[in-house]
Amino acid sequence: MKKRILTGDRPTGKLHLGHFVGSLSERVKLQHKYEEFILIADIQALTTNFNNPENLRQDIIEVTMDYLSCGIDPEVVTICVQSMIPELSELTMYFSMFTTVASLRRNPTTKAEAEEKRYGQNIMHGFLGYPVSQAADIAIFRAHLVPVGEDQLPIIEQTREIVRKFNNLYGSVLIEPKALIGEVGRLIGIDGQTKMSKSLGNAIYLSDSSSVVERKVRGMFTDPTKIHLGDKGHPDNCPVHIYAAIFNDDRGVVEETREACLTGKLGCVTCKKKLAVALNKFLEPIREERKKYEGCPEFITEILLRGTKKGRDEAGKTMKHVRKAMKIDYFRQ
Amino acid sequence: MKKRILTGDRPTGKLHLGHFVGSLSERVKLQHKYEEFILIADIQALTTNFNNPENLRQDIIEVTMDYLSCGIDPEVVTICVQSMIPELSELTMYFSMFTTVASLRRNPTTKAEAEEKRYGQNIMHGFLGYPVSQAADIAIFRAHLVPVGEDQLPIIEQTREIVRKFNNLYGSVLIEPKALIGEVGRLIGIDGQTKMSKSLGNAIYLSDSSSVVERKVRGMFTDPTKIHLGDKGHPDNCPVHIYAAIFNDDRGVVEETREACLTGKLGCVTCKKKLAVALNKFLEPIREERKKYEGCPEFITEILLRGTKKGRDEAGKTMKHVRKAMKIDYFRQ
Repeated sequence: MKKRILTGDRPTGKLHLGHFVGSLSERVKLQHKYEEFILIADIQALTTNFNNPENLRQDIIEVTMDYLSCGIDPEVVTICVQSMIPELSELTMYFSMFTTVASLRRNPTTKAEAEEKRYGQNIMHGFLGYPVSQAADIAIFRAHLVPVGEDQLPIIEQTREIVRKFNNLYGSVLIEPKALIGEVGRLIGIDGQTKMSKSLGNAIYLSDSSSVVERKVRGMFTDPTKIHLGDKGHPDNCPVHIYAAIFNDDRGVVEETREACLTGKLGCVTCKKKLAVALNKFLEPIREERKKYEGCPEFITEILLRGTKKGRDEAGKTMKHVRKAMKIDYFRQ
Repeated sequence: MKKRILTGDRPTGKLHLGHFVGSLSERVKLQHKYEEFILIADIQALTTNFNNPENLRQDIIEVTMDYLSCGIDPEVVTICVQSMIPELSELTMYFSMFTTVASLRRNPTTKAEAEEKRYGQNIMHGFLGYPVSQAADIAIFRAHLVPVGEDQLPIIEQTREIVRKFNNLYGSVLIEPKALIGEVGRLIGIDGQTKMSKSLGNAIYLSDSSSVVERKVRGMFTDPTKIHLGDKGHPDNCPVHIYAAIFNDDRGVVEETREACLTGKLGCVTCKKKLAVALNKFLEPIREERKKYEGCPEFITEILLRGTKKGRDEAGKTMKHVRKAMKIDYFRQ
C-alpha cells in the first residue's frame, strides 16, 4: 500500500516561485509514488486574516488553479478545504488539552512570524495554537510524510511531540509523521531577503504575465559589490544566479554565465535578460494550463467538493479511533 | 416567544449542594418560563481531566440523573453532550482567532483555577482557552441568559466581549448574553472554605445517603470561637447555620436556633442534628426520584441522544449564519 503524504497552503493569495521550489514541485513529483492529500488551510489563514476573511473564497480558487497548472492531478491527489472538515477543529481541541502554552511560545516558526508581525502582547489564542491545529491536520489524515520547507521543520517536530503524547496518554492510534525536505527548501526573494513571501512583497507569482516577470527580474537585487561591468561578481549569493540555477533548464548557459560573472566579463543587465527568458520559458506552460481553468470555476468547485468529501470521510475514520482511544465514543448510534 | 437560557456543568462526578444552590435550583425554577438548554461540557472537563477521560461516560450519566432527580423535565429542557456537537469546536476556533492570550490570562475565573491547581508554566493551551470555548457554547445556542454562580461572572463578561468583537468584525449575528445570578450564588464548604467543591473534598452530594449526610454534618466546621455550650456563637458566619437557612423549610426553627446560638443557649451538636434532619428531609425526594433512573441507563441515553440531536440542529443553524457573516460559507451544497 502506498504511504500517505499531507501537505497544504494557507490560502492568502496566488502561489509564487517560493511555493513551487519549497513544496509544490515535490508534490507534483511525489503524487504517483504516494497517496497525496492537499489541505487548503483556510482556518489557519484566519490566524492572521481574521479581520478580512472576504478574500478567502477567491484565494482558495486561485490556489487550486495554481496546483492544477503546475501538474497536480486531481484524479490522484485529494484537495480539501479545512473549514469544511469540522473534525479538524474537534481534534485540535483535544490536542490543545495536553499541549502547554510554553511549548507553543517556544515554537521557532510561529515565534518568528509573531515577531515579523509585531504581535507582542496582542498575540491571539488561535495564532499561538497554530502548531496544534497543524498537528491535527497531519494526524487526522494519518500522513506518514509531510513535504515542507526548512522553515516549517519546527512545526513537524511539534506535531511529532503532540502525536507521541496522544499515543502515550490514550494508546497508539496516531501515526508519527516525518518531514520530507525538497531539493531546494527555501527560495530567496527578488529583493535578496532570505525568503520569498507575499507579505514581504518580493515574490514572482506562478501566474505573473511575461511582462510582469520581465519587470520584476529587471528590478531584482544583485551582488552589491558588482557595480560596473568589469567588476567581479559573487553569483552564488546573487538571487539572479540562484534563480537561473533552479529554473533555467540549459545547464551549459547557467555554468557559462556563472563563470563570466565570477571573472567580471558579464554585466548584470545581460544576466537578468537571460533569467527573464528562462523564467518565462518555465512559466509559460503553467500559464497556458491555468487559462483552461480560469474560465471554469465550477470545475474547480467540483474538485474541491469531491476532495473535501473524501478528506472528511478519512477524518471521520480517524476520529472514530481517536474517540474510542480517549473513551469518549459514548452514546453514538 | 420564550427567551432562551443556556447552562451546564463539567461532568466531573455527581452534583452536590453547591451546584444545587449555585444554579440547579434556578434551572428547575426557570424551565417553564424560558426555553432551556443544558450542555454537559465533557470537552471542558478534559481541560483538567485530559489524562483520565475514562470516567466521563459514567459522570455524564450521573450528572443527568442528578438533573432529573432535582426536577429538570427532559420534555421541556434540552440536555446535550458537548463533544457530540463538533460545531462547538469549530466556533471555538473562530473565536480564538481574535481573542488575545493576554485577555485570557487576565480572566479571574480561570486564573484562580490555574493557581488552585498550581499549573504555573505547565498551563495548557486548552485550559487557557476555556473562556473561548464557553463563549462558543453560549453563542452557538443563541442564549439570552446564563444562570451562573458568582464565580463564573468573569466568564460571562468575557463571552460578552467575544460576542461584541465577533459582531463588530463580521456583522450583528450573535446574541450578547446576560448572567442570571440566583438567590444564593455560592455555597460555603462543610469545612468552612468559601466554596463547596469536589476537588476540595468539602461537598455533600445530592445522592449521598442519609447516613453519609449525618456523618458529614457531624464533622462540619463551626464557629471556632464557640467552644463550650455557653459560648456565644456567630451563626451568620457558621456553615451549619448557613445551610439551615437555605435547606430547612421551617423558618421558625431556623430563627429560633439562630437566636439560641447568638445568646449561647444552644450547642453545636444539637444544631448539627437539626441540620442533618433538615438536609435529609430536603434530599429524600431527590434520592427517591434518582432510584427510578439508576436502573434505566437506556432511558438516560435516550434523553441525551434526543437532546444532543436538537442541540446540534440549533448549533448548525447558528453556524450557517456565522459562516455567512464571515464569508466562509463557500462551496456548500
